Amino acid sequence: MAGYDQTLEPFLWRAEKLYPDREIVSRTHEGITRSTYAEYGDQVRRLANALEDAGIETGDRVATFCWNHDRHFETYFAVPSMGAQLHTINPLLPAEHVQYIVENAADRIVFVDPSLAEKLAATYDEAAFESVEKFVVVGSEVPDVELPDAVDYDSFVAGHATEYEWPELDQEASAGMCYTSGTTGKPKGVEYTQQMLWSHTMAMLTPQGLGIEDSDVVMPVVPMFHVNAWGMPYATTAAGAKHVYPGPAPEPADLAQLIEEEGVTITAGVPTVWLGLLEYLQENTVDLSSLETIVIGGAAAPRSVIERFDELGVEVLHAWGMTETSPVGTVAHIKADLQDAPAEVRHEKRSKQGLVAPGLEFKVVDDEGNDVAWDDDAAQDFGELLIRGPWVTDSYFERPDADEDSFDGSWLRTGDVVTVDDDGYVKIVDRTKDVIKSGGEWISSQELENAVMAHDAVAEAAVIGVPHERYQERPVGIVVMAADATISKDELESELVESIREEYPKWWAPDAFVYVEEIPKTATGKFSKKDLREEFGDRSLVEGEAPPDRE
Amino acid sequence: MAGYDQTLEPFLWRAEKLYPDREIVSRTHEGITRSTYAEYGDQVRRLANALEDAGIETGDRVATFCWNHDRHFETYFAVPSMGAQLHTINPLLPAEHVQYIVENAADRIVFVDPSLAEKLAATYDEAAFESVEKFVVVGSEVPDVELPDAVDYDSFVAGHATEYEWPELDQEASAGMCYTSGTTGKPKGVEYTQQMLWSHTMAMLTPQGLGIEDSDVVMPVVPMFHVNAWGMPYATTAAGAKHVYPGPAPEPADLAQLIEEEGVTITAGVPTVWLGLLEYLQENTVDLSSLETIVIGGAAAPRSVIERFDELGVEVLHAWGMTETSPVGTVAHIKADLQDAPAEVRHEKRSKQGLVAPGLEFKVVDDEGNDVAWDDDAAQDFGELLIRGPWVTDSYFERPDADEDSFDGSWLRTGDVVTVDDDGYVKIVDRTKDVIKSGGEWISSQELENAVMAHDAVAEAAVIGVPHERYQERPVGIVVMAADATISKDELESELVESIREEYPKWWAPDAFVYVEEIPKTATGKFSKKDLREEFGDRSLVEGEAPPDRE
Repeated sequence: MAGYDQTLEPFLWRAEKLYPDREIVSRTHEGITRSTYAEYGDQVRRLANALEDAGIETGDRVATFCWNHDRHFETYFAVPSMGAQLHTINPLLPAEHVQYIVENAADRIVFVDPSLAEKLAATYDEAAFESVEKFVVVGSEVPDVELPDAVDYDSFVAGHATEYEWPELDQEASAGMCYTSGTTGKPKGVEYTQQMLWSHTMAMLTPQGLGIEDSDVVMPVVPMFHVNAWGMPYATTAAGAKHVYPGPAPEPADLAQLIEEEGVTITAGVPTVWLGLLEYLQENTVDLSSLETIVIGGAAAPRSVIERFDELGVEVLHAWGMTETSPVGTVAHIKADLQDAPAEVRHEKRSKQGLVAPGLEFKVVDDEGNDVAWDDDAAQDFGELLIRGPWVTDSYFERPDADEDSFDGSWLRTGDVVTVDDDGYVKIVDRTKDVIKSGGEWISSQELENAVMAHDAVAEAAVIGVPHERYQERPVGIVVMAADATISKDELESELVESIREEYPKWWAPDAFVYVEEIPKTATGKFSKKDLREEFGDRSLVEGEAPPDRE
Repeated sequence: MAGYDQTLEPFLWRAEKLYPDREIVSRTHEGITRSTYAEYGDQVRRLANALEDAGIETGDRVATFCWNHDRHFETYFAVPSMGAQLHTINPLLPAEHVQYIVENAADRIVFVDPSLAEKLAATYDEAAFESVEKFVVVGSEVPDVELPDAVDYDSFVAGHATEYEWPELDQEASAGMCYTSGTTGKPKGVEYTQQMLWSHTMAMLTPQGLGIEDSDVVMPVVPMFHVNAWGMPYATTAAGAKHVYPGPAPEPADLAQLIEEEGVTITAGVPTVWLGLLEYLQENTVDLSSLETIVIGGAAAPRSVIERFDELGVEVLHAWGMTETSPVGTVAHIKADLQDAPAEVRHEKRSKQGLVAPGLEFKVVDDEGNDVAWDDDAAQDFGELLIRGPWVTDSYFERPDADEDSFDGSWLRTGDVVTVDDDGYVKIVDRTKDVIKSGGEWISSQELENAVMAHDAVAEAAVIGVPHERYQERPVGIVVMAADATISKDELESELVESIREEYPKWWAPDAFVYVEEIPKTATGKFSKKDLREEFGDRSLVEGEAPPDRE
């Protein structure tokens, strides 16, 4: 009685049959390229023939080391639909991570952009790349770099037929793979089955997901090596919508031009991209009238960004997800019953990570695994977000050591500490490794940081938990004073403690503050809590302090 | 790496958590009832406890013999989510069919409406109902009918807890069951797995399906015993939308009142329902301003119905499906690139069965299994529709005899003869058993019937194929002359043949016409081609005719 397996290829079949003339537009090193779904289908099948001819078989891994463009998109359907697995490598990773994951994944072929070929050559290591038989440089010639067995894309596919008999695949077959780049330890591989990608695609089409329609023009700025550009190329195809790929290292001017000239309706990326676009718009006149939605993930957008785009008639839509969740888990749509709520309420909801997508389940649990209440008392009721569903993985690739900490039965432990309000909106307030566990309760380091940084005399600040004999951990603020600050440290601390006690439980106020010239940062620009804990995690900082008041 | 299984219960969980106050409204024998998702969730879990207490275990079948209302909807989630299977029985079936399917399905409990209890009692047969241990009459008392072991619903669930620990189900688990009522032979059971219903639900949420949003108010007029009311109760829940159930035997006045008072935005049913509503609207003033979409399936809506609702600002949306396809396979949305097409073109597209839903695949094949071209030459290029996908069954319940004819590998043979136009719109032109196979080509009996019935002198007409020595089959028209017709039969036939030859290939024109007082009809009011073939299928009708011209 079971239905036919859930696989990706029928989405391409449908787009090609129903929307043969709709375009796939791409900014490349050679300028704008255009093809139609009809042409794209031929290209995908030609590529599948070339891969088969190169010896790629069911279950083999084919890697990409590429920006967002049409050739990269060809691999999205060709590789999984022939039964192989598409492994998208993040070219921004440190060389040793790239070496590790190529070896770990045992990639057989690597597609690489001309502009990234030199970087990949510098990363190349014979032992780590032992499984790699061929490098395919996406272009019509191979640049002069030290990559063995390199061939240009045009030669690789030349002469191959545009007919291909797709195999009937099992929905449990591996289709994709992406590594998480944790701040500590080795990257962990997440594999996507055909069914996971199918489910995520359908969810993205729903109005509660992104609601992509055949009239849409979708431009993923989020890189295609980052969880399949948040799954947008698949969803766009399933909807029969037009694709726009911004190519290598797009500048704000490139994005503005593509939006204006191609009539982009939906785009997606991290906040910094849109900050850059807003800056560009201050100096330049751009017709954004086609643009309806900017999906923002990776981090929360500053309020000013949301408001500025509101003024421009563009909706900023927060979404949350992880490599482990394929990736979209929540989307911050305004619920029907909040459409007429005061602007401030709607803004607050939109600034959160959002509502769980249909098909998924989550729970929020405290240290003892008890469910945390869904209410607006964000200071009290938060816990770790656990999530499960058809597009949430239940293990890492060959990492039973990591699985033990990361999964609880069928639930993924996200490592995100969240609140859920009365209306069901999820808001991230911390990471489990950063949250301060004090006297059996949790204190959000992020909330405290925001409170401390709100003071004019503070340039930047981090809050960490340091061990405490009686209370397990107590918060300590690490503060960079503003250059023009005139207030004394005693006065500042007194004001900070007072303002924190007004807004949060009294015992949240840090027991101590230390002053530094600069907060150490990670490679991606975030506060390095790990370094801070190493430097300031000494018990003597809070030892001997009077026990804090408890509410 | 596989994601968590696709099951229905998370849709209910989400609706209850995110939309606790949204309503489920139902017209019942006792008037309008209202509950919220929060209350509904409790009722569902209470029912699950009652069923478990009554001995229902994993894989058991629980049947319903009910109209559309809230209690029926409770079984939709309670039964499948506890691992049992919901078997919705069509109370309009002849008694012997009901007996057959209850015995075939081995139902253990049957839920029955008070107004249908007498009918079920009349159908009751000890041998056929041997598996049935209990009848639960949906209400607060058991009517005085001859049903053994009958209990009223209120007593059945009384005292049971509203907490229930749902089991972690396999997505391959049976969730639902519905029998097709073929015109010949015994009804065939179609089983729905959790995954099939999950997939269909997600597809219905997409804009390419029905695009149900949390702001919608959904009223399925199509019976809940008919392929889960086309899956709308599940999709409505997944969207967090409001439900409206029109209860037992709703009259047009009831539907009008519910639309007006509950603010219905989407409704669905067969054409006759909407013809009835239009008649009612001629005499009564009803505020239809909330209503956006009427989904019509089961048969094509007459053009006048589509146009009348257009004038009222309501979109008629054709959909096609079968019990075997859970059921929605195609939906007649206007594609983005046809939005600005001439009204006549848009009307033509909307009058067809529509575009395949994302996630499904189909092909149209001729007698030899060759693909038929997709073009606008409807007279030439048609064939049988074969379909497959995650919500299309690949077998019947315990009917290997029927499976052989009905499935071709992973493809369901729909038995529908269709054309597909340049834009991908599917149009049904015949049934495979009615299409006339002449000289290796197919002639659509429905097209010829429409052509013959277009003549003023014809009251009604059917066209059947009768055996022919050389051409395998040739068309013969069975005609009921209009009472006021003055034309001679010779003149009529000559005019008919001429008009058919203008529009279709010359060899489509019937070789002979016979005249009758009335066309025999089936129980559902359709022409009984089977009876006609028995009566007029004699070769002598066309024997000796000159071979028809071939184009």
